[in-house]
Amino acid sequence: MRIGLDIGGTKIDAVAVAPTGQTVDRVRVPTGFGAEQVVANTLQVIDALRGRTGTTPTAVGIGIPGLIDHETGWVRHAVNLGLSEVALGPLVAEHVGLPVQVENDVNVAALGAAQAMHLDGAHAYLNIGTGLAAGIVVDRRLWRGARGNAGEVGHIPVLADGPPCVCGQRGCLETVASGSALAAAWPGHPGTTATEVFDSADAGDPAATAVRDRFVAGVASAVRILVVTVDVDSVVIGGGLAALGERLLLPLRADFDEAARSSPFVASLGLSSRVLLAPLDQPLAALGAAHLAPESAVTTA
Amino acid sequence: MRIGLDIGGTKIDAVAVAPTGQTVDRVRVPTGFGAEQVVANTLQVIDALRGRTGTTPTAVGIGIPGLIDHETGWVRHAVNLGLSEVALGPLVAEHVGLPVQVENDVNVAALGAAQAMHLDGAHAYLNIGTGLAAGIVVDRRLWRGARGNAGEVGHIPVLADGPPCVCGQRGCLETVASGSALAAAWPGHPGTTATEVFDSADAGDPAATAVRDRFVAGVASAVRILVVTVDVDSVVIGGGLAALGERLLLPLRADFDEAARSSPFVASLGLSSRVLLAPLDQPLAALGAAHLAPESAVTTA
Repeated sequence: MRIGLDIGGTKIDAVAVAPTGQTVDRVRVPTGFGAEQVVANTLQVIDALRGRTGTTPTAVGIGIPGLIDHETGWVRHAVNLGLSEVALGPLVAEHVGLPVQVENDVNVAALGAAQAMHLDGAHAYLNIGTGLAAGIVVDRRLWRGARGNAGEVGHIPVLADGPPCVCGQRGCLETVASGSALAAAWPGHPGTTATEVFDSADAGDPAATAVRDRFVAGVASAVRILVVTVDVDSVVIGGGLAALGERLLLPLRADFDEAARSSPFVASLGLSSRVLLAPLDQPLAALGAAHLAPESAVTTA
Repeated sequence: MRIGLDIGGTKIDAVAVAPTGQTVDRVRVPTGFGAEQVVANTLQVIDALRGRTGTTPTAVGIGIPGLIDHETGWVRHAVNLGLSEVALGPLVAEHVGLPVQVENDVNVAALGAAQAMHLDGAHAYLNIGTGLAAGIVVDRRLWRGARGNAGEVGHIPVLADGPPCVCGQRGCLETVASGSALAAAWPGHPGTTATEVFDSADAGDPAATAVRDRFVAGVASAVRILVVTVDVDSVVIGGGLAALGERLLLPLRADFDEAARSSPFVASLGLSSRVLLAPLDQPLAALGAAHLAPESAVTTA
């Protein structure tokens, strides 16, 4: 049995996965804030799963939003969780006496999507949340790249003299195709911005339509970059804004189909059938964390 | 011993490579035009190498510019060579009684660059010729992608309402950063366009400076897309326009350094040290063809 944890901004979602791939148990606890609370709650949820399943797990995988050193298991920064330079992997490994692996949350969600959706070969998981980033999985294993930056398509500049991006550049894809981009273009109620923009666009509001269409074109651009550069077999749309569901998927596919009509090259890519929605009813990040390759895990000294 | 052929527009460049990786012989013959001539000259150059080296090769690899089905060894189209639907791999395999692999010329050059430059891990070979395309190599093996389109960064649209591209889209990177893009922006003497543009820019011509700077920015954009999407360790600049040498490399690096000054993210990528020039004095494509993985080769029935 393997344990996978998704340490999110508000809750820790943890699953126990059998060798068959079956999720046998799931526990959720509040995350807390700061190193002391987050580590304590992490250990507590692992102990709870061990007690409930009555079996000894063989490995623990953890996904967390922030800058992670996956080789050492240290969390460099996880601003939303109040973590900075925390030896999360070694601390958990010492407590549970098991190999522990710590990874970026988008990467574990990409692995989880591959498991849940039975995707072999190469695929990308495009996470559209506050930011925009992709995780790349090849044969159910993470492709991190040479320096851990694979899939960082959100920081490709696409608009000359575009709005400033958190990364210090201007006009990055993330300033067009992300939750924060929608919030900036449609100030109002944070958290419901995407739905409001899409509702207003559907009701015929021209400003909302322009904001929505620009957002969809940006997501389409990210998908195309992933397909022509890495040539992943599929791009799975995930993250908070994947809750838009077909309201996002259908205009995306319309965008690809329109481009295919004027370009035999684009037509040959078959983009429409290669873009998929992540299943919203499964804990993809926790599931993916349970499937991190144990051979690169941190162990106790 | 393995034989590698680079079937180019004017000549076939062929090498014999020892198991140590050493190039032991090299032969060049004119390519000819059309299926009959190209196949005959291909067989002739292989026979010549076999005769001269006096040893029996174990495999033959062929690089050719065009649309290739690497699984069957068929050349779908190679317009500049007058080839359409030619069973090149099977024909050569039948003649020489050896496994034969046929691959796109940019991909074999990418493999050859990895060999010649001793590049392990992941790298991209960005071929700037008439067009713009990259080959991606991971641990000295080609990463073709799910459908053979990996590295097709030339057909990422970057300019809204930009000039029409041969692929049917508008404003692709190839319409900015390629030999054909320079020729369109600086009509004059085909073949020497790049040198003329760079010479005129160096002499202070503002129009030439604008053309050069736009070209360099386009190449920089292609490098950045490869680095943040695939996260290759290095991007090797190759193809005809790599002959510009430091006249291209230095402004590219200046572009990266300027972007790094305003963006901690770009600074963390270390782009300047990750962009390299391909060695011009080695037959990279023929060398790479000799290193194609033989297990996926076409054999005689």
